[in-house]
Amino acid sequence: MTSIKHVYFFGNKTAEGNEKMRDLLGGKGANLAGMNLIGIPVPPGFTITTEVCNEYFRNGRDEAAIMALIRPEVDAAMKKIEAAVAGPKFGDNSNPLLVSVRSGARASMPGMMDTILNLGLNDEAVATIAAKSNNPRFAWDSYRRFVQMYGDVVLGMKPENKDAEDPFEEIIGHVKAQKGVRLDTELDTGDLKELVKRFKEAVKKSTGQDFPVCPREQLQGAVMAVFNSWMNDRAILYRRLNQIPAEWGTAVNVQAMVFGNMGNNSATGVAFTRDAATGENIFNGEYLINAQGEDVVAGIRTPQQITLEGSKRWAILAGVGEEERKKNYPSLEEAMPEVYRDLFRTQRALEDHYKDMQDIEFTIQDGKLWMLQTRNGKRTGAAMVKIAMDMLKEGVIDEKAALLRLEPNKLDELLHPVFRKEALAKGKAIAKGLPASPGAATGQIVFSAEDAETWVEKDRHAKVILVRVETSPEDLKGMNVAQGILTARGGMTSHAAVVARGMGKCCVSGAGAVAIDNKKRTMSVDGAVYKEGDWISLDGSTGTVYEGQIATQLPELSGSFGEIMQLSDKHARLLVRTNADTPRDAVQAREFGAQGIGLCRTEHMFFEGDKILSMREMILAKDEAGRRNALKKLLPLQRNDFEGIFEAMDGLPVTVRLLDPPLHEFVPHDEKGQAEMSAVMGVPYEEIHARVEALLEQNPMLGLRGCRLGNLYPEITEMQTRAIIEAALNLKKKGIKAIPEIMVPLPGILYEFLAQRKIIDNTAAKVFAERNDCVDYKVGTMIEIPRAALTANRIAESAEFFSFGTNDLTQMTFGYSRDDVAKFLPMYIDKGILKNDPFAVLDQKGVGQLVSMAAVNGRSVRPELKLGICGEHGGEPSSVEFCHRIGLNYVSCSPFRVPIARLAAAQAALR
Amino acid sequence: MTSIKHVYFFGNKTAEGNEKMRDLLGGKGANLAGMNLIGIPVPPGFTITTEVCNEYFRNGRDEAAIMALIRPEVDAAMKKIEAAVAGPKFGDNSNPLLVSVRSGARASMPGMMDTILNLGLNDEAVATIAAKSNNPRFAWDSYRRFVQMYGDVVLGMKPENKDAEDPFEEIIGHVKAQKGVRLDTELDTGDLKELVKRFKEAVKKSTGQDFPVCPREQLQGAVMAVFNSWMNDRAILYRRLNQIPAEWGTAVNVQAMVFGNMGNNSATGVAFTRDAATGENIFNGEYLINAQGEDVVAGIRTPQQITLEGSKRWAILAGVGEEERKKNYPSLEEAMPEVYRDLFRTQRALEDHYKDMQDIEFTIQDGKLWMLQTRNGKRTGAAMVKIAMDMLKEGVIDEKAALLRLEPNKLDELLHPVFRKEALAKGKAIAKGLPASPGAATGQIVFSAEDAETWVEKDRHAKVILVRVETSPEDLKGMNVAQGILTARGGMTSHAAVVARGMGKCCVSGAGAVAIDNKKRTMSVDGAVYKEGDWISLDGSTGTVYEGQIATQLPELSGSFGEIMQLSDKHARLLVRTNADTPRDAVQAREFGAQGIGLCRTEHMFFEGDKILSMREMILAKDEAGRRNALKKLLPLQRNDFEGIFEAMDGLPVTVRLLDPPLHEFVPHDEKGQAEMSAVMGVPYEEIHARVEALLEQNPMLGLRGCRLGNLYPEITEMQTRAIIEAALNLKKKGIKAIPEIMVPLPGILYEFLAQRKIIDNTAAKVFAERNDCVDYKVGTMIEIPRAALTANRIAESAEFFSFGTNDLTQMTFGYSRDDVAKFLPMYIDKGILKNDPFAVLDQKGVGQLVSMAAVNGRSVRPELKLGICGEHGGEPSSVEFCHRIGLNYVSCSPFRVPIARLAAAQAALR
Repeated sequence: MTSIKHVYFFGNKTAEGNEKMRDLLGGKGANLAGMNLIGIPVPPGFTITTEVCNEYFRNGRDEAAIMALIRPEVDAAMKKIEAAVAGPKFGDNSNPLLVSVRSGARASMPGMMDTILNLGLNDEAVATIAAKSNNPRFAWDSYRRFVQMYGDVVLGMKPENKDAEDPFEEIIGHVKAQKGVRLDTELDTGDLKELVKRFKEAVKKSTGQDFPVCPREQLQGAVMAVFNSWMNDRAILYRRLNQIPAEWGTAVNVQAMVFGNMGNNSATGVAFTRDAATGENIFNGEYLINAQGEDVVAGIRTPQQITLEGSKRWAILAGVGEEERKKNYPSLEEAMPEVYRDLFRTQRALEDHYKDMQDIEFTIQDGKLWMLQTRNGKRTGAAMVKIAMDMLKEGVIDEKAALLRLEPNKLDELLHPVFRKEALAKGKAIAKGLPASPGAATGQIVFSAEDAETWVEKDRHAKVILVRVETSPEDLKGMNVAQGILTARGGMTSHAAVVARGMGKCCVSGAGAVAIDNKKRTMSVDGAVYKEGDWISLDGSTGTVYEGQIATQLPELSGSFGEIMQLSDKHARLLVRTNADTPRDAVQAREFGAQGIGLCRTEHMFFEGDKILSMREMILAKDEAGRRNALKKLLPLQRNDFEGIFEAMDGLPVTVRLLDPPLHEFVPHDEKGQAEMSAVMGVPYEEIHARVEALLEQNPMLGLRGCRLGNLYPEITEMQTRAIIEAALNLKKKGIKAIPEIMVPLPGILYEFLAQRKIIDNTAAKVFAERNDCVDYKVGTMIEIPRAALTANRIAESAEFFSFGTNDLTQMTFGYSRDDVAKFLPMYIDKGILKNDPFAVLDQKGVGQLVSMAAVNGRSVRPELKLGICGEHGGEPSSVEFCHRIGLNYVSCSPFRVPIARLAAAQAALR
Repeated sequence: MTSIKHVYFFGNKTAEGNEKMRDLLGGKGANLAGMNLIGIPVPPGFTITTEVCNEYFRNGRDEAAIMALIRPEVDAAMKKIEAAVAGPKFGDNSNPLLVSVRSGARASMPGMMDTILNLGLNDEAVATIAAKSNNPRFAWDSYRRFVQMYGDVVLGMKPENKDAEDPFEEIIGHVKAQKGVRLDTELDTGDLKELVKRFKEAVKKSTGQDFPVCPREQLQGAVMAVFNSWMNDRAILYRRLNQIPAEWGTAVNVQAMVFGNMGNNSATGVAFTRDAATGENIFNGEYLINAQGEDVVAGIRTPQQITLEGSKRWAILAGVGEEERKKNYPSLEEAMPEVYRDLFRTQRALEDHYKDMQDIEFTIQDGKLWMLQTRNGKRTGAAMVKIAMDMLKEGVIDEKAALLRLEPNKLDELLHPVFRKEALAKGKAIAKGLPASPGAATGQIVFSAEDAETWVEKDRHAKVILVRVETSPEDLKGMNVAQGILTARGGMTSHAAVVARGMGKCCVSGAGAVAIDNKKRTMSVDGAVYKEGDWISLDGSTGTVYEGQIATQLPELSGSFGEIMQLSDKHARLLVRTNADTPRDAVQAREFGAQGIGLCRTEHMFFEGDKILSMREMILAKDEAGRRNALKKLLPLQRNDFEGIFEAMDGLPVTVRLLDPPLHEFVPHDEKGQAEMSAVMGVPYEEIHARVEALLEQNPMLGLRGCRLGNLYPEITEMQTRAIIEAALNLKKKGIKAIPEIMVPLPGILYEFLAQRKIIDNTAAKVFAERNDCVDYKVGTMIEIPRAALTANRIAESAEFFSFGTNDLTQMTFGYSRDDVAKFLPMYIDKGILKNDPFAVLDQKGVGQLVSMAAVNGRSVRPELKLGICGEHGGEPSSVEFCHRIGLNYVSCSPFRVPIARLAAAQAALR
């Protein structure tokens, strides 16, 4: 433990911590302190630090040791709460102080960990509160909630199998059935007393122990339960998806309770200072009268809108008439205008202070507003971009802040397809819900998260739409693999909506017309029945559900997005190129702002049409003459390919990689395919079969490929060089400027590269002489074999550029075959042996060391050496930052990652 | 060109060069200069430097340019020769100076390149010589030899197909047939004139040009032919086998002719100052009266012995009676006692001067001795060791010189099997030849070098004996793959004998009783006929040929060999361990001086007997419980293995590597094998088949193996650790000291190693507690993944030793699969892209850089880190030297390489 202070008090506009202490106090704790310091009313409380959590796990979850460590500070902090609330005391049943216990990690992990409210209640205390509040129903509702939460979370009674019913919910169901009512709110005080009695019996039966009556014991249990929740499966999964280290730990916030369930002058709600889906500068949110805690988010009751404008908009979407709206779903602005004004002022103050869109939680207790939380709000990619640009224009933040607060990966959402307008016009809308998370999704219906996972496991191209009454944290994995999410219940701040927005996934929530039958695996809307596997489409921007599949198209990159990209290019030093093998990809990437092609894989061209036939003819050839004959047929086809690509990239450099994959990738390995090939080519089956067998390798990844092919069959390199140079010369006549950079794949030895360079230069010279014309071209090499990186100073003497092929370099540096790594890589990430999949996130310690060594050594002999990266890491933000740091000239990535890389490059330059 | 002097004169006991200038003048040229300087009679001449040769090839073989460069110096040197011989002038047909033109590279390449004698002859000159010498037959014999050599070598008339007859030999055959004689010596002057006439006609027919009459033109052609011979196929092959760089080039020696064919008072011969086969200090050699140049070595006439003692010994082996010997085969000692005394003194002087056994060539012209060459003689491994130790004892050289002049790889010969005495006693001797190169060989007869190659290509375990009338340089490849060589003709200095000794290959030469029929592919000895494919055995130490196969055994390492080993250990810093998986190997290696086991591969143990069944049961197990059950059966078997090995290495460290190979290596991949496995194990075939399929990988080398296995199935690591620790404890009770070093294979990530180390330490602690006893053990790791080498400073924090697995490290650093590399590696070595097979000789630039980086970084955090190497490079001398240089503690190699590594380690320390 590096800090000797374990507990930080806050309350009454003072605080021992502050908003900068996120690492120690967690986000929630830091902001609770921060809000106090800027004079916002917050129930007093204290935060137990993340270091205590870490110590707890280091100690093998030794509860007694941890309590010994923190008890004196906890007791002292509790005294300060008692002083702040002036009256109630924790553990004093004659005037009990109740507290909430909440987790709070450095990064927000919504719904991942557990919370306990109303802690401090027991049979005596509840009686006191019933009497003092003159509201026995409130007191007993609070008590039954506490017992239930405590039983589920601290005593572990929540079933692990999520299909099994919660034992407490089961009891509630029985009681409601006995009484013949549907809603919890229809239960009276007597019913609630009965619930508490039965709950305690269930606890005794399940744990063998009486429910704890001592508030100090309750507190200890709750604090440990919060710590334990840091390591529950959902939290671990969430951290993995969001790359949050386990070492961060969670803080625990203990706070005096305020009650939104104290009657009709009480309420609880959540709000955003701007629109989390679109980014518009509109205050919005939802609340519930006479409700507590998670009721709003859980989506069990339909929440009401905070602003009048929002309420009216909601009513239209939900099909609720103005009369009914006013009566049953009034906005907070209408229902409690004074409190609303307080809330409005407070949200402005918070956004002004934090200079970012805030996601706030509040409770109104008997007409008084209390803020329970503020944090930077999760938002869609589109909202992220718009809010940043708006705040920049408003003068709230500067360019650096605007760029640095963006998550590059979230731009991906903006690049996702949208429905084609003409297809959408013809689409059959079948239901309407809330536009909870924008985007367009088309997929086959599944009714459970497990099914979603299974479908995608079986066929990784499967597209499914997860259809649920409402979602819960257990559905996370299934939501992650689904194209979109449709829920029948829940508002804009329901679990499904919040999580989907966080994932950048299309979601339509609260589509009340959709009736789901989980047993039959069907959903029906207005009498029409849709089965599992039927196709539907969701428009997350309008909340519309369509029947069948609807065609999509690429979005236009305009407005704030375009501005952000321009701003990125202004600040970035690293150029961004693209990996593209076809004119179509090249055009697309250029539209996304690519400044050249960093990797054009020639082999992909060989699979098209007649080319594969000539390619196979070459492979089957018995000697050089036979190969040259086949290559002669390939030459015009390949030259044509290059003309298309060079034309698309007119004036920008195009790095063409010579033939790379092993030859056996071009021939069929199965009997049927070989028989077909035999028929088409007029070559006996046996001959083809024998040749294919001869081509097979034990470890093709480490076999005859790359420039080893070009050195064994120099005529292939000759043909490819000729096609490149001739294409460039042809275009020159048309006034189109091709800038070819010819790249030798896979060398590990200087002389391997030199042998290829000689063929390339000789061939180019020959073509120039034939045509009596010339073009500039460069010759460089992939650095993708560890040995090439280790001897880069030698290779740089003769290579004009290096392109780091970090895919292969990762394979060889780790000794991992990408094709086989699935057998152990997930286990390594689970066990924390690896933090990331090194094929997704560049391993800076190992692979990066080679890259950086090669960059330094290469430049030491050729200072103007052009350096780039063309592995898949070229579009991954942390890897882009690394490339910037070590001084590469460019990164190259797939067209759809180009905008992400541009932003990441700018951020790297600004950091 | 870095030197401006291109031609170095020598003669008359003066010289412009000296014996230290081997690089520039070649070995022959440097020693010709050197012999002059110590007063030994050498025909005057000059040497054209190796740099001229290199310039010739750099210039694209531009003859005119080279001649322009050297002509003035050549002319000047020729003038000096003329001055030295006082009379004859080059190009003066009235008193012609004849010269020889010989190649001479830095390293001796016997028979690889071409020689031309008697250059300067033409129709006029021959007449002058005939008259002046009063010996027309000699003159015309010299002329016909010259035309033949010049036609073959300079004019390219020697057929490339070695089965095609030389056109000149064909003419000789015709003339002899016409005349009805058998021997060349039976031809008279008239016949020789006829030969010259027909030779010249053949030249004209073949080249379209008259045979050149101008000596200067002849000289230019001959010099260029010598240069060109540097790049002929035989020379290239020889260089590759002997790792001689092409850049060395060859020098050309032009020397005044002396004639061994001037009559019966003339002779030519070769001799060794000590016995090249056994190393005994006995002057020995062979000569022919009235002969020239290569006649002795070519083996066409049976050469006579130089010493009387040698001659008597030869007669016994050859079955020649004393009368006949004296008459037809007198020794030089008898035939020319004066000259013999001169020769004896000279050879002593040369050995004293060069302090090494010399291989000398001489010519006696009309009773006067001329030395034509001296060089350190090629010798067998046994002779190498004995001569070095003898000279050390004689006080000629010191320990350093004795050790440094040894070729470690040649020790291999001494470790080769010898015939078992009892088997040999029962063997049926069928013929007797000369003990040309010692060793024991058993194999199947083949009658051509091509057949030898083909047999071994088809089956790499094939053992063949190459049986030839005599061998020629074209047979090199075939000799290289044969177990031994038997020739019917040729002496101790015949091509077969010299080359076989150089290769350390068993050879019996000149077994005159053997009659070979190449067409029928049979050989007959005393009526018994042996066909191709029949087994015979050769004893190269006695010259005996046996029928059938004779069992062999390992040699004893005693005498000079033992002394050399002790001397090595005295000077070496690097320890030598062995790679051994069985007690038998361990015992063998310990006898060879291994100081521990550096690599004990546990997986090899799993293939024996019942172990493979339990192993397969484990692999088929569906869950951990099933695996544990199978492992329980393996435990006692594996413990037993370890007990055997630890006992064999009592008191020496044993590095045990945990399970490394992918599991699919333990199961049959074919239907038959799987069906058998199904029957034996009582598991349905389909289940086995499915499991095996599931285990297959695209690139198994980069797949689920090494510690990835131990991390996925920790129970395997547990079992192996338990077996190791229990074995050590069991032996401790018996007073045997096991020093286990447990080695984790294939980590690339610190945490990967840590996870294994935790299991190992926990298991060991558990066993210690159970037994209430303990032993010391270390835990370390292989460094065989590039990333492990790159992050060695982190891994060293927790590992007590590193063992560099340079086999895998080479695979991954180069991106070469050992199993597939044959498709392009030979081409890379042919083209000079790679100098060596990196799996045989450690690549110091790339792989070595990683090893050395890891050594430095590892020691930076743990100075006492023990470092070793256990790849196959551990027994390769240049790699051992590298290991010494970078400060490793030990190398580990296969038992038979241990003595080689010990010597290499000493040499490394001495250099």
